[in-house]
Order: sequence, then structure tokens, then C-alpha cells
Amino acid sequence: MSGEDLDLTVARLGESRIPSPMSGTSFVGDDEGVLYHSHWMEMQAFADSNRRPPMFEMAGPREKIFFDPSKLKCGIVTCGGLCPGLNDVIRAIVLGLQHHYGVKTVFGFRYGYEGLSPRHGHTPLELTPELVDDIHHEGGTILGSSRGPQDIGDMVDTLERLHVGILFTIGGDGTLRGAQALAQEIAHRGLKIAVIGIPKTIDNDISFIDWSFGFETAVSEAKAAIYAAKTEAAGYRHGIGLVKLMGRESGFIAAVATLVNPEVDFCLIPEVPFTLEGFLAALKARVAEKGHAVVVAGEGAGQYLIPGSGERDASGNIRFGDIGVFLRDRIREDFRQAGLEVNLKYIDPSYMIRSMPANPHDSAFCLLLGYHAVHAGMAGRTSMVVGNWKRDFTHVPIRLAVSQRKHIDPADKLWNNVLAVTGQPRDM
Amino acid sequence: MSGEDLDLTVARLGESRIPSPMSGTSFVGDDEGVLYHSHWMEMQAFADSNRRPPMFEMAGPREKIFFDPSKLKCGIVTCGGLCPGLNDVIRAIVLGLQHHYGVKTVFGFRYGYEGLSPRHGHTPLELTPELVDDIHHEGGTILGSSRGPQDIGDMVDTLERLHVGILFTIGGDGTLRGAQALAQEIAHRGLKIAVIGIPKTIDNDISFIDWSFGFETAVSEAKAAIYAAKTEAAGYRHGIGLVKLMGRESGFIAAVATLVNPEVDFCLIPEVPFTLEGFLAALKARVAEKGHAVVVAGEGAGQYLIPGSGERDASGNIRFGDIGVFLRDRIREDFRQAGLEVNLKYIDPSYMIRSMPANPHDSAFCLLLGYHAVHAGMAGRTSMVVGNWKRDFTHVPIRLAVSQRKHIDPADKLWNNVLAVTGQPRDM
Amino acid sequence: MSGEDLDLTVARLGESRIPSPMSGTSFVGDDEGVLYHSHWMEMQAFADSNRRPPMFEMAGPREKIFFDPSKLKCGIVTCGGLCPGLNDVIRAIVLGLQHHYGVKTVFGFRYGYEGLSPRHGHTPLELTPELVDDIHHEGGTILGSSRGPQDIGDMVDTLERLHVGILFTIGGDGTLRGAQALAQEIAHRGLKIAVIGIPKTIDNDISFIDWSFGFETAVSEAKAAIYAAKTEAAGYRHGIGLVKLMGRESGFIAAVATLVNPEVDFCLIPEVPFTLEGFLAALKARVAEKGHAVVVAGEGAGQYLIPGSGERDASGNIRFGDIGVFLRDRIREDFRQAGLEVNLKYIDPSYMIRSMPANPHDSAFCLLLGYHAVHAGMAGRTSMVVGNWKRDFTHVPIRLAVSQRKHIDPADKLWNNVLAVTGQPRDM
Amino acid sequence: MSGEDLDLTVARLGESRIPSPMSGTSFVGDDEGVLYHSHWMEMQAFADSNRRPPMFEMAGPREKIFFDPSKLKCGIVTCGGLCPGLNDVIRAIVLGLQHHYGVKTVFGFRYGYEGLSPRHGHTPLELTPELVDDIHHEGGTILGSSRGPQDIGDMVDTLERLHVGILFTIGGDGTLRGAQALAQEIAHRGLKIAVIGIPKTIDNDISFIDWSFGFETAVSEAKAAIYAAKTEAAGYRHGIGLVKLMGRESGFIAAVATLVNPEVDFCLIPEVPFTLEGFLAALKARVAEKGHAVVVAGEGAGQYLIPGSGERDASGNIRFGDIGVFLRDRIREDFRQAGLEVNLKYIDPSYMIRSMPANPHDSAFCLLLGYHAVHAGMAGRTSMVVGNWKRDFTHVPIRLAVSQRKHIDPADKLWNNVLAVTGQPRDM
Repeated sequence: MSGEDLDLTVARLGESRIPSPMSGTSFVGDDEGVLYHSHWMEMQAFADSNRRPPMFEMAGPREKIFFDPSKLKCGIVTCGGLCPGLNDVIRAIVLGLQHHYGVKTVFGFRYGYEGLSPRHGHTPLELTPELVDDIHHEGGTILGSSRGPQDIGDMVDTLERLHVGILFTIGGDGTLRGAQALAQEIAHRGLKIAVIGIPKTIDNDISFIDWSFGFETAVSEAKAAIYAAKTEAAGYRHGIGLVKLMGRESGFIAAVATLVNPEVDFCLIPEVPFTLEGFLAALKARVAEKGHAVVVAGEGAGQYLIPGSGERDASGNIRFGDIGVFLRDRIREDFRQAGLEVNLKYIDPSYMIRSMPANPHDSAFCLLLGYHAVHAGMAGRTSMVVGNWKRDFTHVPIRLAVSQRKHIDPADKLWNNVLAVTGQPRDM
Repeated sequence: MSGEDLDLTVARLGESRIPSPMSGTSFVGDDEGVLYHSHWMEMQAFADSNRRPPMFEMAGPREKIFFDPSKLKCGIVTCGGLCPGLNDVIRAIVLGLQHHYGVKTVFGFRYGYEGLSPRHGHTPLELTPELVDDIHHEGGTILGSSRGPQDIGDMVDTLERLHVGILFTIGGDGTLRGAQALAQEIAHRGLKIAVIGIPKTIDNDISFIDWSFGFETAVSEAKAAIYAAKTEAAGYRHGIGLVKLMGRESGFIAAVATLVNPEVDFCLIPEVPFTLEGFLAALKARVAEKGHAVVVAGEGAGQYLIPGSGERDASGNIRFGDIGVFLRDRIREDFRQAGLEVNLKYIDPSYMIRSMPANPHDSAFCLLLGYHAVHAGMAGRTSMVVGNWKRDFTHVPIRLAVSQRKHIDPADKLWNNVLAVTGQPRDM
Repeated sequence: MSGEDLDLTVARLGESRIPSPMSGTSFVGDDEGVLYHSHWMEMQAFADSNRRPPMFEMAGPREKIFFDPSKLKCGIVTCGGLCPGLNDVIRAIVLGLQHHYGVKTVFGFRYGYEGLSPRHGHTPLELTPELVDDIHHEGGTILGSSRGPQDIGDMVDTLERLHVGILFTIGGDGTLRGAQALAQEIAHRGLKIAVIGIPKTIDNDISFIDWSFGFETAVSEAKAAIYAAKTEAAGYRHGIGLVKLMGRESGFIAAVATLVNPEVDFCLIPEVPFTLEGFLAALKARVAEKGHAVVVAGEGAGQYLIPGSGERDASGNIRFGDIGVFLRDRIREDFRQAGLEVNLKYIDPSYMIRSMPANPHDSAFCLLLGYHAVHAGMAGRTSMVVGNWKRDFTHVPIRLAVSQRKHIDPADKLWNNVLAVTGQPRDM
Repeated sequence: MSGEDLDLTVARLGESRIPSPMSGTSFVGDDEGVLYHSHWMEMQAFADSNRRPPMFEMAGPREKIFFDPSKLKCGIVTCGGLCPGLNDVIRAIVLGLQHHYGVKTVFGFRYGYEGLSPRHGHTPLELTPELVDDIHHEGGTILGSSRGPQDIGDMVDTLERLHVGILFTIGGDGTLRGAQALAQEIAHRGLKIAVIGIPKTIDNDISFIDWSFGFETAVSEAKAAIYAAKTEAAGYRHGIGLVKLMGRESGFIAAVATLVNPEVDFCLIPEVPFTLEGFLAALKARVAEKGHAVVVAGEGAGQYLIPGSGERDASGNIRFGDIGVFLRDRIREDFRQAGLEVNLKYIDPSYMIRSMPANPHDSAFCLLLGYHAVHAGMAGRTSMVVGNWKRDFTHVPIRLAVSQRKHIDPADKLWNNVLAVTGQPRDM
């Protein structure tokens, strides 16, 4: 993306006039920007034409804030599938509000957007520092989650009724679209409620964000499944270990897990199409050569091969055919037809991956993510998510974050290194 | 079992006349027995009637051995499904033969009994101490495995051709029956080849043996799956986490894993029948009460409920209906019919459990198991397995080990403690 | 021990007349015994002479109990050093009292015996099922601990004042002696207070007990330290990795950890004396041969070599010289004097081992240990500990448990297998 | 650093004229730069004055290369202390040379720079793809390591004698200075030998590099030590858990480990001075308030407090006083003098951290680091290290990498967040 017409402006509820209670800190100026481009070849055009290059607003504590901490009430909601680090983020927001600003009241809405809709009758939890202090040791979310949208008006009614000043929404693409709609309705009603998103995508596929929480943990946890696949494959004649990993739109988990576990012989991802014939031929060749093979398939790989894939579920996410089960059956059939023995073991570790606690890397990352979400909310930003760009935390307008998915470019380094590791054919 | 008519005599190839090369060791006398009964109430009858109580031959190094170590060649074969510790046992046999007796030639037959049959064309590996020294760090079996029997005559031909004096067979029920048949054919031909079994049952369901290798590791590794099930269940309204664990005939893994992970609400095992209605009613009650529930099902539980369960596979093992998939579908249907929301996540961690390396407990156990197998073989025992009884290693005739499966007694402590932990109804 | 004059009788507070509220359980009869001897050679003498062999009382629920559950109050105290599983045992006692018998009030005395002495001013915690439900996920003890004795009269005063009927003391040798003194004072005063010990020895060195909780976890956790020692040793010319493991009186942790981690070249334990010269000569030879070496030393090994070892600390435990630091310095000096390069890394992982949560094996074991302690107390037993013998839970008089330490017999199998694994000289 | 006069030019051996054998890859142009500045406030000055901003050469495969792969021989050497990922980097270089360029001969020099000096008589290993394929599963370095410099002339003689075209040196500050001297002598002799450094600093303290391999693993592995410290501290009255972590010059490990493990009450790092009195007063206050405390100290913290700190060792690294032992003794003394009980446990996990295998994050990072080192060498770059800047791999002149250490800025975000997590006073 050239960035020529990129509008990275983040919405504000109004002017920040209240002095921050934080002391001894280096505050971030509102004009500090994190450059969108980090390569000279992209930046040069701006330099040559004397135009200001596109940049993200830098996240961090501001000297003047929008909300009066002594009167502020906040809310947190977690939506969609589980992801390592959810509890870390909840905890960081609660402790950040308390330690940095002295904000005392934080509502934890139960079971996703359901908890904001009076129709479901959930009572919010009151999130105190004591309550959240140890929750990051466990996976999942103490708030519970659900999929799918709720009535926007209903939810804003709840925020008004509870006098919530900042709503933190932790969720993926659908959730962020919901957050955007909430911010629009809030603006429409002329309310001063900030909506700050913390992007949750275990697949790391949200655009304008380098890294999302839970992804590192997912890659780490995938190791056990790939190890099992390799061990089973090597333990039998013509053994094949097939592992399905998460990644509906983008194959980052499958690709990075392949770099980590070079015993993988084939990595299949949504971004790189293949024909069943091409894949099966390459697989048979590898099994003939090595005696066994390990295949890792991202959830969204080869969807076009599966009959009846493509509908939408309650959250509006596209329903996927099960590439794991599909390949399992087709591989067995193919070997059988070729008169070859095959010992295929299929492993689907998804629930065992996404329900784990954050690993130390993600744990530190979630802490900072939550802190920066707090700073952004206190400074009156809204309809934005906290991003991470070139190792800096940033403010990203939700409209941009949901405008497109982030994908692996098959011509770029990551995929080329995957090919080097697996030795699989570039085209199958 | 009263033990009244228990014949624990182990077959011998002949008299042991060769002095053991082991020095500085306490040898075990041939008349040392490990009492079958350890409770006074069982032993009293024998005391009262002045009869000698039943006892296992104690395993361990003998002062006189049957084989001349300088001329001996041995073979090892691993059969059936993967189990943590296979490589530990292979390693212990090779190193035990070498370090204790100076035996140099050990063949590793490839891919189970296939490797003993000339029809499959596998060449045996030569297992040197250097080759096996580090193999216990990895799961699986470096020899490879396969299921199902091979022609007994063919296999004995191979042993004769390679001048194998002791064959170590590592496998489960079917494998041990095969070993027994080998020993019979060997006896029939008048050969002096010992067949020593190392009982492999991750389910811990071989009779006359307290503990089998891999079981502890399996229980440990099940923790992650149950944790995931709990986290997923608690993360959604009416969440249900369903985990299928190994245990076709006996529910030891499911039961002990339940003691270890008290978040389990229902433990279903083959030994304790239940009706689908009874289970579903109890499950709905628990979900209504707690908001979510965790169910652990041993592979062989409730087989009578599943249409079309009961055939036999290549190894002669009974083919099982998939209780996990069956319950998953029936639970969802039942909640739907009751007009209740349900968020069920099904986890089948079997391949991720059985392919792991042995944990430290099993690692030490496998080392000693392999050493004792070596001592038994050198002493000319045959058609036996190495057992463990009341914390002593023992010699157990194969005919006894395969005579019946070991089961959980629903009236006994283990199951009562499981019920105490889960709070599930005794009868469902 | 021949067992000729072994008195395994356990003290009782009085006759059990109250029907147990447990239902559907197989109760254990008071006359059911677990035979002390499990080998025929030991048992034969009793059979020949028609004498009743020695046996432990079998642990488990009784049909009639001594205490009225509806009126009973209990107490728990944890003493001495941390050990994996302490929280599991606390939890099992509280839940066992509640679930099996409906006992509601359980006091948790703080910081060991200090919590029973009014002089220290600690208020006991009230241990509810909710409070303890998740504590086994963490190492340490939620009650806190301390070393050393307190005034016996003071402590019994506290028990009387709080109307405690059963005191569960979780601790080692010194703690159990304290428990015995408490039981004596209680008897002296004519009170009906049961004192039930749960033997805590990470070193597994309490007599008349096969296995103690935390030991398996300790052996498992030692793996990382030995791995580090091996990696550091192999990473440098003349590298030596030296690891000190727990085991003041007995070397079980060091010995079993050596079986688990065969990269160990030398295992030093209290039971097997060595000279510094002999050890250093063997070490130099091994380093010359392999390029590096790994040494594991139990805490109590070679104490006679260390100047100034032998005093007693506050708990009456003997103070030990630090064999790790001693060997570190002497090895370096010895190589230097021999003109040899040496790269020695010393690792003392003790605190990192003993503070870990119980592993799954110990977790299940602690659950059953706690349950059996509850059954014993409810049945009016006193001045006893819950033991484990030949895989059965037993009642063991404290006087026996503290009468001697359990040691490794250098002539027996365990040590011989250690020598086989390390290849170290039998005599150094 | 303003970057005004930063010279980021990387030395080249000559013009690259040979077409790369890599196909299907996007090559990196020699003029592609990764901008040194990523913040607008730093970049603005360059934009305003129309000057070209400083930028690193971007790492990656070039379309034209300098060395003829068919004739090239390479060498690898690992120096200094162990660091997780060393074997991953060795493996990645060997496999990268083979898979991307078809280079067949790679010498592994033994035991650091010693292996390059004929005086030590080490024979290099020949590193084949088969030999290195699995080495990343283990910690340490298969090549061995040593500290300290060797004669530069001797080493260049060895490179000449073996016809080495590219030498890859994996090591820290001292090693890189050595690599720079090698490159100078090579230039002086007019040879065409590239010297490519892979910066190894578990402390993450090399300048001009965002992230160094092993650091993430170190932070992860520190978790167990801090957990033990917390558990021990909470288990006793006035318990204090004291952990020393690596970090001689810079406190990144201690600081990030504190973010990950918020049970830390005090984090002490080299960059933030404190007085003993100030620290002890704050510690006593925290213990009085919470009952216990956890202290994490980076190796280089408070060196000025320790008598006799400051000499230099064989590698020219400054010798440090042991802050852990120093604080342990002073804290005990201080509490004693104040008449307060104290139960302090001191944990030094350094060897158990640095000898571990790389975690999945570092494993993938090391793979790419090694690949990019190969591309740089093949393209004829020399006297440089492979860096990572704003998530891109870069070429960094050694002279810059060793010009200064990277430090934590006490006024910046990382330290402010540490203070928020611990609640320790900003000034002690």
C-alpha cells in the first residue's frame, strides 16, 4: 500500500483539558507520529515531493486528559473466540485505570455484546484490582464471550444508564465493526463515551497492525501438535501426520509454525492456491522419498476445493469447510487408489491452543496493550484500536483496521522462507 | 481373584549354568517370590491351611545365566500403537545387554512383526549403544511399528536365520499373544530362543501388572486437554467441554485424570454403564447449576449406545464406535430439543498424548523394565512378560497376562474417589 | 528389618459407634491388614511357625466412625520446608471432610506450629471448600509454614479452646515428633482429640512408607538443572556441570534423578561414602576421556569431608555443610593444581524444585492421601501418619515413622542400577 | 541519538557479479534502506532540510552475489557464554548455504576463537545438513565455546589455509571486536574473506539492534525462578524471595521479566542507581505491608555498592561483584539489626536459563537471522552484523554495533511501566 491517500486520523471526543495525575512520566505529545513507512523506497516519494508522509498517532500517556478520573466509570467486553491473553488485557486495563489514573469503577460485561444488551439479563461484574490481580495465570476470559452482534441502540442505552465513559472492546473483525457502530450511535446521540478497541486475532490478520496478542502463544502451542504429527508419521510405514491450524483468512500461524518446526513437509495456507492433484502428487513423491510426511494446513487453505464452503455464521464470519477432514479423506482415498499403504493421523489442536494462558512474550505485550488502551481512552480518543507498528504502540482508526485483512504475500520473504524450510514445490 | 488355582510358573529354556559377568551386585535367587496377595484377608486362608500362597517369580539378575553373552545375538520389536516410553525401553534393553552382560549384537526389527517376516523386505537396524543413547528424548519408536499378526513360521525362520537368542517384544495384548505363539513354535522346533515380552498398554489394563509404562505420562498429558475443555466451557454460556481419552477396555486414564483435574464434572468409563437419558439429564442439571460442565469419556465408554460398534480390525482388536463424536452430536441435539443454548467444544487429544516422550517417572520405570527384561532373557526365561507388582519387578507368564483385561471395579476405592471428585450420580 | 518384633498397632481415641454418612462405598474393615512383607523369603518364617505376620492397618473409610460429623471441628497445620503438593493435601482434607462427612468447620493454622501457639498472635484461616478449591494449582502452602517446635501445652490449649476434634499435621520428621508429643499431652489431659500426620518429605526418607508426596515432582523438576549442567559442561573444554539436589539423610532424589537423566557421570549420596581423592581422580579420568562431566550430589553426601558440619538448627535438624560449594571449590583447585583447564558451573536448584506445584502424579496421590487422613481421623485413630505400602494406603504409628530414616542400601538394586547408568567406580 | 552524523555504510569485498542461483524469490535491491528513525519528530528535521535520512542497508537475498557458490567454503565459530538459539543459528547458516546457494563445505570451528588458532590443536567439524538438522532441539552449542581473544594473525592464517571465503562469528561485544580485527587484518592482507557477525547477547544490549536472539527465551525461563521466589516468600513470615537475573550492562531481562511476572515488588537494574539505605527502607516497608516481598536484580545493578567490583576477565569483559550474594547478606543483616524476623531465599537461575533450547519465537528468529547472514556473506558484505530494526533484518557495521551498549532509559516507557507494575519508589 503506497499510503498516498491513507487517512490515519483518529477521532476525539473533544479537547483534553484535565492535567494527568501521572507523575514522573515522559508524556507523549499529540503530534508525535509513528511513520507508516519504514523503508526508504516508500518514503522517498514523500521526501522528493516535500509532502508529509503518513503516520500513526503514537500511543502513550498524555499530559492533558479528557476524562476526570474521579468521576469516570469504564466498561470492558470480550467477544468472539478465545485467544491467549484475554485475561491479561482485562487485567491490564483494570490495573492501568487504577494505578495510573485512580479510576475505581470498571464494569465487566458478561458474555460479549450480549452483556451490553438488556435482553439477555446478564449483570456486569465489578472489576476490582483484587479480583483481576491473578487472572492472567489462566486462559480464556473471566468475562465470558459470545459471537454475533446485538442491537446497537440497546447497547448504547446500557452505557448511558451505567454512566460508562470509556468502553473497551476486545475482539476481532466483527467485534470491531460493532465497536465502530457503537461509536457512530454515540456520536449521533451527542454522548461523550469513548470506544477503544483492543484487536484480538490469534491469526494476526488485522491490517495496519504488525503483531496481535495471542499469536506468539498460538505458534508456540502448535509445536506439540506438529511434534505429535511427526512422531506418528515416522512411527509407521507411509505415515502421514496432518495438522490443521487456525487461520481462516491468513496463514500466518501455519507459516510461522513451519519456520519453528522444520519437520513440516507441506504448509498449506489460504493465500497460496493449490490443486488437489498437484498436492497429492507432491505428497506421494515425498512419502516415497522419506517414508513419511508431515502436512500443516491453515484453516482457510484450499476452501475452493471443498464442496459447500462459503456461508456466513451468526457473527457474520464466513463459514468454512473443514480442510483437515477433507484432506484426511482425500489423501487416504488417493493412496488407496494408487495401491499404496498409508497410515494417516489427523490432529486438530485448535481448542487446545486458543484456550491456553498467554506465554511470557504475549503476557508482557498484553500488559502494555491494555495500558496503552487506557491512555488512549483517558485522552478522549474513540473509534480506534491500539495497534503496534515497528515496535511502537499506535492509535489506529477502526475504519482502517477493518477495511481489509492482512495477508501473506506469496512473493515475499516469509513465504519464500517457508518454501526453503519445507522444500515443497512453489506451485502445486 | 482368590489365587487358589493361580499358576504363576514361568517357562525356562533350560538350566542356567553360566556364571553371570555382573559383579558387585546382589543377585536374585530363583526361589525368591513376590507374594500375589498383599492383604491379610486374602493371605489368611493360605496361612490357616498351611498352603504355600501364590507368588510371582522375582525379576532381577541371576548368579547363573542361560546364555553365553559372548555368543548371544538379540532382537527387539515394537508393535501396535505408539506409547510414551517405547524408545526408553529399546534403549534400556540395548544398554542393559551391553553394560551388564557385554552382549554386542542387537537387531532392531522394523515396523512391528512385519520386520520379522521376510515378505515385507525390511532390513533390521543394528542397535549399538551409540545409536540408542539419546533416543529416549523423543516420543514414538525408532524401530517403527505396525498392527496385526504375521505368519508365525516365517518369523521363527527369521530368528533362526539371524541366530537370535532372545527376542524382546514390546507390545500390547495382541502382540503378546503373538509372542506366545512364537514361543510355542520355537518350543515345537526345539530351539533355544527366549521370547520376553514388555507389556505396552497406555491404558494400564493388562492383568497381573500394577502399572504399565506410558500410563503416567498419558495421565499427565491429558491435563492440557482437560484444561482446554474447562476454559472453553467456562468461556461461554452453557459451555460444555468434552474430552475423549484413551481406554478401550478399561477407564484407568479417564479415572486417574479426573482425580488429577477436579474440574471434571462427569467421567464416563467402559466399566460403568449408563443410559443416554440418564447422562443427558444429569448433564443438563449440572449446566443449569454451574453454567457449564466438563465431560471426560474413556474411548470404550458407552459402546452399547453407538450403532454399529463391535467389529474387529487387522490386529484382532475390537473396532470401537467413536464415543466422543457420538456424545458431541447427541448432547447438542438434546439441548436443542430442550430449547437450551449450548456451546460444546469437543477435544480428542489421543495422538498428542501417545506420541509424547516419557515423563521422568516413566523414563526411570522404562529403564528398569528394560534392564529386568534383559536379566530375565539372560536367565533363560521365555514366554513371559516383565511385570510390576507391589513395587517389585516380576516375571509373569504371557498366558496369564493375556488371560483377561484389568478393569476398574465400580465398587472399589478408585471409582468411589472419582465420584467424590466429580459429584456425578453413581447411577445414570 | 525382619519384622519379628514390629508393633504396627495404631492408637485409637475410643470405640467407633457412629454410622458413617458415606453411602454406596465399600468400607474397610478394622481387621484388614496390608502385609508388611511382600517377599516369600521374609514371609516364610511366619508361615512355617504359624505366627501371624506383621501388617499395617489398612486405611480407608470405616462403616462406624468415632466423631459426630455434625459437631466436629478440625484443624490443619503445615510445617517445615516447602514441598510440592502441600496445597493439594490441604485441599483434599478440607474437601474430604466436607464431601464425605459433611464437616463444615476447618481451621487453617498459620505459619506452622507458631499458628497453634497464642504467643505468636496468628489468627487461623477458616478453610471453606470455595477457598481451597483451586489452591492446588499453586506451589507452596496457603497456610504458611515455619520451622522449629512450640510449647506443647500452649498448642493443646489452643486446640481445646477452639474445640478442635482432629488436628492434621503436615510435616517431616521434626513435625511428626511434635505431633506425637501433642498426642501424648492430649492423652495426658484425657481429651478426645485425634492427631493425624501426613508425612512430608521431599527426600522420600521416612521409614515404613514407600512413597511420599512431592518426591516424584522433585525428581521431575531436577531434570532442568541436570540438563543445564550437561549443556554447560559440553559447551566448554573440560566442562564440568555440578548440581546439588535435596537429600540430607538419604539420596533418593539424586539416585532416581540419575536413572532419569543418564547424562549424569557421578552420583554422590549420603549413604555411599567416598574420599575426596578417589572422587577427584575418577572425575579427572572421566573428563580426560569424554571432554566433560556431570556430577550430581545429594545434599548430605560427603558431609564428613566438610569442616564444621554437624550442628542442629531451630527445628532440631542437623545443620549441613554445603557439599555443592565445597566440591565446586575443591574441583577447581584440584584441576588447577594438576595444570588442567576446567570450566565448572555449579547449579543449586533446590528452591526452584520445592516451590513448584505438584505434578499430576503427586496431585492424584495427595488427593488420596488427604482423603485417607480424613477417614483415619473420623475413625478415631491418633498419633499416626497415613502411609503408602505396596500401593495401598496404610495407618502407621508415628513412633515407628520417626524411629529411623529410610536409606538407600548400596548393595541393593537401586544403587546398582545407578552405577550401571553412570559407570562411576563402585568405590571411590 | 539524533542520527545526524551516523554512518551506516557497510563494507563490501568488491562488486557482486555472479547471478544468484535462488529462483522465484523477490530479491532485495542494494539501495533498499530501512529507516533509522521511525518517529516523525526525528524524521522531520531531515524532511525540512531536504537531507537524506540515515538508513540501514536492508538484509536479504541479492540478485547478484560476490562468491561463486560452487567454489565457496565457509566457517562458523561460536564464542562467549551460552545463549538459547546458538544451535538454531548454526543450523540456519549451514542449511541456508546449502538450500539457497548449494554451498557444500562448512567448517565448524571448535571452542570459540581457540578453534581458529593452530596453537590449540582443535580440528574443525565438517558441518553437513544431516549433522545439523536436529541440533536446534538442544541448548548450548555443538561447536563448543570459549572466552577471550586469540592472535589475529594466527586466525587469519587458518582461514587462508582452509580457503574459507566467509566466516560467520556468533558472539557478543568482545567477539564482534575480534571479528572487526579479523576483517581489518584480512583487508590488510588483501584477501577476499567476508566476516559476518551474528550478534549474541542474551541481555539484548547491543546497540542499533532492536532484538537479539535468546532474549525472549531468557525472559520466559526467568518465570520459573520468579515463581519460586514468590512461593517461598509467601510461605513464611517476612519471607523475601531474591532472584538475580542476567544483565551486566543493561537491565532488559530484569525489566521485561518484571512486566511478565507482576508479583515482583522491586526490580533493580544497572541503569537506575539506588542507595542501599533507600532500598532497604523500601523493602522493610513493603514486607511490613504485604508480609513478604519479591526482589529481582539484574547482574549489573548496584555494582558501586559492592567492594572490589570492576576488574576485567580474560575476554576483556568487566568482572562484576555478585549483587545477589551482596544483597542477600545485607538484607539479612539489616532485618536482624532492626530486630525483625526475615526468611530470605536467594535464587540464581542464570545457568538454567542460558542453557535452554530456544523457545519457538527465538527459534523462528534464529532461522531468519542465519539465512540473512548467509545472504549478506554471499553478497560480499563484511565487517558487519545482521541486525533487526523495526521488524526488518538489516546490515549493521560492526564498528557501530560495538560503539556503545544499549541501555534502558529511566525516563522512558519501559521503566515507567516497570515502576507501575512493582509500585517501587522511583528514587531509592
